[in-house]
This record gives sequence, C-alpha cells and structure tokens, in this order.
Amino acid sequence: MADPHEIMLECVNLALAGKGHTKTNPVVGAIIVQNGRVIGRGFHKSFGGDHAEIEAINDCEEEINGSDLYVTLEPCSHFGKTPPCVETIVKKGIKRVFVGVVDPNPVNAGNGIEYLLKNGVEVYVGFAEKACAEIIEEFAKYIYKKQPFYSLKIAQTLDGKIAAKDGSSRWITDETSRQHAHYIRSVSDGILTGIGTVQADDPALSARFLGLKKYPYKIILDSSLKISTEREVFAEKPEKCIIFTSRSNFDEKTAKIDNIRKTGAEVVPCNKLNDGLDLQNVSDELVKRGVLNVLVEGGGKIHASFIKEGMADKAYVFIAGKILGAEGIDSLASLNINNIEGCKTLSDLNVTRLKNDFLFTGKFYDYAKDIINLTERVRNRCSPE
Amino acid sequence: MADPHEIMLECVNLALAGKGHTKTNPVVGAIIVQNGRVIGRGFHKSFGGDHAEIEAINDCEEEINGSDLYVTLEPCSHFGKTPPCVETIVKKGIKRVFVGVVDPNPVNAGNGIEYLLKNGVEVYVGFAEKACAEIIEEFAKYIYKKQPFYSLKIAQTLDGKIAAKDGSSRWITDETSRQHAHYIRSVSDGILTGIGTVQADDPALSARFLGLKKYPYKIILDSSLKISTEREVFAEKPEKCIIFTSRSNFDEKTAKIDNIRKTGAEVVPCNKLNDGLDLQNVSDELVKRGVLNVLVEGGGKIHASFIKEGMADKAYVFIAGKILGAEGIDSLASLNINNIEGCKTLSDLNVTRLKNDFLFTGKFYDYAKDIINLTERVRNRCSPE
Repeated sequence: MADPHEIMLECVNLALAGKGHTKTNPVVGAIIVQNGRVIGRGFHKSFGGDHAEIEAINDCEEEINGSDLYVTLEPCSHFGKTPPCVETIVKKGIKRVFVGVVDPNPVNAGNGIEYLLKNGVEVYVGFAEKACAEIIEEFAKYIYKKQPFYSLKIAQTLDGKIAAKDGSSRWITDETSRQHAHYIRSVSDGILTGIGTVQADDPALSARFLGLKKYPYKIILDSSLKISTEREVFAEKPEKCIIFTSRSNFDEKTAKIDNIRKTGAEVVPCNKLNDGLDLQNVSDELVKRGVLNVLVEGGGKIHASFIKEGMADKAYVFIAGKILGAEGIDSLASLNINNIEGCKTLSDLNVTRLKNDFLFTGKFYDYAKDIINLTERVRNRCSPE
Repeated sequence: MADPHEIMLECVNLALAGKGHTKTNPVVGAIIVQNGRVIGRGFHKSFGGDHAEIEAINDCEEEINGSDLYVTLEPCSHFGKTPPCVETIVKKGIKRVFVGVVDPNPVNAGNGIEYLLKNGVEVYVGFAEKACAEIIEEFAKYIYKKQPFYSLKIAQTLDGKIAAKDGSSRWITDETSRQHAHYIRSVSDGILTGIGTVQADDPALSARFLGLKKYPYKIILDSSLKISTEREVFAEKPEKCIIFTSRSNFDEKTAKIDNIRKTGAEVVPCNKLNDGLDLQNVSDELVKRGVLNVLVEGGGKIHASFIKEGMADKAYVFIAGKILGAEGIDSLASLNINNIEGCKTLSDLNVTRLKNDFLFTGKFYDYAKDIINLTERVRNRCSPE
C-alpha cells in the first residue's frame, strides 16, 4: 500500500460505489493513511450528502493529525450543499493531500489546492489521472455544457447489423453481454429510447440482475405520443417514466396525456427539430431533473440523431461473432456522410472479451483529456519556479 | 526447454517459415533434442523438398541415436514425393517421438504412429495441439474437400462499412493494419478479388513491406472479361495473374483473351452460377495449380458469394474506430438471411489490438477441431487398455 498510484486506484473503486446516486455532483473516493496504514475510507454516497473526504474522516477511529489524505478529485473550497472540505482537512491537521485530478468546476479548479498550500498542507497532484478523470466525465460535460452525458449502447453483428431483415434481434449477443449491459443500466441515471423501440421490443428499461432490479429514469422520445399505457415501461415504477412529446400538438393530445399522467409518469412538451425532437430541449429538461448520465438504447435512428446533433459522448458496442449480410438492419441510420473524409472517429478505444462477444468502447469527445490537461495547468501554476 | 509443450510451440514457429511455399503439402516443423539440448531443427521448405523431420536430422552435427524428435505433424508412412519419414526415424535410432497432431491425410492418419510403435519407438501424441492444427487448416480442407482454403479479408468501420457513399475508402484502417494485411498476403498462395474492385481501386495485389515485394497468384473473377491490360495487376509479374471468365461467351472474347495472354497472364474459362462464376469450378482450377491458401479481398458481393456458397473458411476483419452510418457501403452484400435464426456464426473468435484498429479473426468452419478430434481418436486407439 506504499504506492500512491495504487492507493488512488482504490479510491477510484470507492468512488464508483456512488455511481448513479450523485446527480449533478461528481463521484469521489477518498482514503486516509496514517503511518502507512489505511485508517479511513469514504465516498460521496448521494447528492447533498457528505463529500468523500468527510466520509473518510468520519470513518477514522484513530488519530487523524499528521495523516495522508488520498482523494480522486480536488477537495472543494466553496460552500455548496456542504461546507468547504479544505477547511476541515486543515483543521484536522492532515499533513499531505494526494489529489487524483483537479476539479473542472470553475468555482474550484485549483482554488481548493491553493487553499491547502497556503495553510501549510503538502499537496501532490496527478495520480492515476486517467482513472480519476474517467469516472467524472459526465460531471465534466455538465460543467462545460450543462448537458447530460450520453452513452450509446449498441448490440450488433460483426457486420454492423442490429436486427435481421424481419426485425428479429433476440438475441444477437449472449447472456454475459446482456448482463454487462444491465450493469451499465444500473449505474446510469436514465435509459433513453425511442417510440420505435418501445413498439417493436416493448422493453422494461429497468436494470435486472440476480435477485434485484433497479429503476433509472425511463426516458422515451415519442414525438407523436403514440405510446400505450399497456407498455412494459409502465408496469413497474411508472413514476420513473419521462415521455417527451412534440410541443406543437400538445393540446390535441390532452386526453392521452392525462391518461399517461394517471400512471404516475411525466409527459414533457418538447420542441421539434428536423424530423425528431430537439435534443437540446430534451437535455435541458433532463438536467433540471438531475439526470446526467444517460444510456441511449435506441434503434439506428435515435443513435444517429444523437451523433448528428453532436450530443453523443461515448459508445458501448457489443459485437457478436455473427453476420447477417446487407439485408440486416444497420446499427446506425444515415449520418449524412458522403465521403471517407467525413467519417466520425472515436477516440480512446478499448475492447473487452466477454463470453462469446466483444465489448468495444470509444469516445466521441474525450472529457477525461480536458480534465487531465486542466490538472497539468494547475500543477504547473502552483509549482515552485 | 524441458517442457514438450514449449518445444512443440517452437516447432510451430519453424513450420510457419514454410508458409506459402508448400502447395498441397502441409507446413511442418521439427526439433531434435539429445540429452536435453536441441541438436537439430528443420521445417518443410517447399513442395517436393525434404520433410521437416529429415531437415532436422540433416541439421544435426551430433549423435542422433537415442534422441527425442518433436514434430508438429505425424511423420509420414507412405511414399509421396519423398520416402516415408518413419523409416528414417527408426533407422537413425530416435528413441522418443513427440507428435503435435495426427495427419488428416487418410493414407497416413495414424499409420505413421503405428509404424513407429511397432518398431519400438516411444510415441507421445498431442502437444500444443491447437497451434499444430491451426497451421495446417488449409491442408486439412484440401484433404477433406479438395478445395482451396478461403480467408476473407475485410477492412471496415465499427458499423460495418467498407467505403463511404461515394465509394471512397482510403484509408479506413491505419498503416499498421495495412502492414499486417500485407503480411497475410505474403504467406498466401493467392489473392482473389473481383473485377469490381479491380476497376474501382486498381490494386497491385502484391505483398509489399519494407524493401521487398512478394507475388502470390493474383486471381481475378471477371465473368464478362472487362479487365484492361493497363491495370496494375499486369504491371509486375503478369505471369502470376489468373483471370477467370465465363465459359459461355469465351469464343467471342478471343481477341481480348489473346491480348491478355500476351502479357503472360492466364485466362481460364469457368462455369457461371447465379449471377457470378461457379466457385466450385474456380476452386478446382486453383487446386490444379497448387493454390490452396487464398486470401479473398473482394468487395461485399465477392465476400457474400463465398459465404453463400459455403466456401469461406476464415475471416480477417480489421475494424477501425470510425463510423460512416447507413449511407456507407456494407462490408457484406446480401446473404439472403431473413431472420435472426438464419444468421451465420463464426467460431474460435479472436481479437488483436493494432495501432488504432482491431483485428478480429473467426472461422466459418473449424478444421483445426477436426484434426484435434482425429488426434484424440488415434491416441485412444493406440493406447494400452
């Protein structure tokens, strides 16, 4: 446990325990080490609750004075839902603070580190930076753009098809892929799909695993309000349903809207854009509800619209060793790309082998890189010449 | 070097040095160990030449009597281009023989092993079986079906497109993928493509790498004989070109055929099947010429035809982290698959990370499995009760 990098990776694991519960706050993990031994651990458990550093301090049953604090994200220097963590750190006599990455929130963004330095705390910045940055990508997007972070989930054949000619798709990928997909659902704030998928597959949009279900928001884009209240999404926790429908003919749909609202679901009027709903408008409404980390599980049209509008941030592509040929249904609808120069390139690609399938991940935009760059700038600014 | 498995894997590496030169013979590697020390190495260098065992024996400068022979494939017991290896093994006083896999050729298929046993040689069968079987998959297909082994090479986006709407595709994959593809070309007997690809991309169909070129056969399916002698395939080693064209209007094309033959290229009349050439007929002609290991680098139509006719054996799919959307050109044309039950499943999937891309490999049929099963049957048959 002497290597700060290793300890920081353990903080990352702690942080991830809070995933799905922190709304517009970042997930953070912290560990306190005294004389080379861990004496406290903590993570940010839920929006409005104590920050990870305070959780770790409260977890200590031994003397904190003179200890080392490891924390994935720069401690806060401002009053938010809770008082500034840096004051507590100084008061408790913590000697050294190891910071994973700098807080992208401009109200902090180095101020926390500078406060600690001014108060005689040794600060080391930049450990397991990539891991620390990647767990707060959706927070960074929220800070920079005030939009949710959208991950596209696609399950396809090797030749890029999500269903056969007749629409049948159960199951292209195997049970370990589907279990992994349910895990991703379980740590998302919401699962978004289109009315086409609801009508074709009637999904429950819950996260299901052994003996347990979880219910992120079920977000459905349904421009013409075609949805029936008989659908599976209303069967359990209908109050977690948010149905977006076109504002233009909102009044004509009053009876239907009342009917849906009676289930406990929300119906939200939304602007149209091109032949779908305006995703910026959808995004604004989701942010209002603290829904930041959204898994998009649409068909090819929904996925393509998020890519075309520049809203897609990440892709999870489950690829099975199967082929369907040209009659199969494309994983992505038209992107209006005419030549090879126009192709979209994903960065930070990774592949994981599952049972029979492979999971590709890639980013449309790399927020982690921005956080790591900020961390470097703050470190340079605060370093002695 | 004490582990037979490790020594056998070194034999596999030796065997691969012969890849591309053995025509209808299998590649084989052999090592002779005396008192725990390697004293000879050999591999089957070319069709008609000495077998690997004999090469290894001739490589020894020390006493062979009492030594161990490791060989990827069961030594032959029959007169082919050379006398039976098993006789030489016995004469040289080799004490133990470690065999990777049993020879799928029915004239041998355990007979070599039984000959050795009858002559007092200790025989151990089944080391690094998967590796030993995989290097002779094309030989197994030749033995079982008298057809070449066809590997499809596809370079595609994550969403299964091989070109943009306008046909542009240079370059979807990066330079390390292309270099790897040239390596695969270099160990193939032939590279097969369709007239469509020749007209669109004008490929040289040679294997190119640092400071060197290699020229496998350039095999072009050109039903209507549209090819021009100005094409790159004729620019170097035109005598390695084999143009297959429809037999039906062969006579009408006499002038053009003469013109092509003047370059040194071959023009072969071929039966038609559906809207293409009969791939069984093509296969027969290739086998006649000792062309067994064929890399198919067509467009979506050629690849689909090999899959539909049940001729495709393996796929190399280079996948770039890029997307083109539905306008892009599919990596596979129609396979006449209507529902998910009809999808083709590849087995023995693997993925390798290249620079920016990933290389998937998978098998349409697993000949290695057949060889391993045969090996098990022969081992059981020859084992004491």
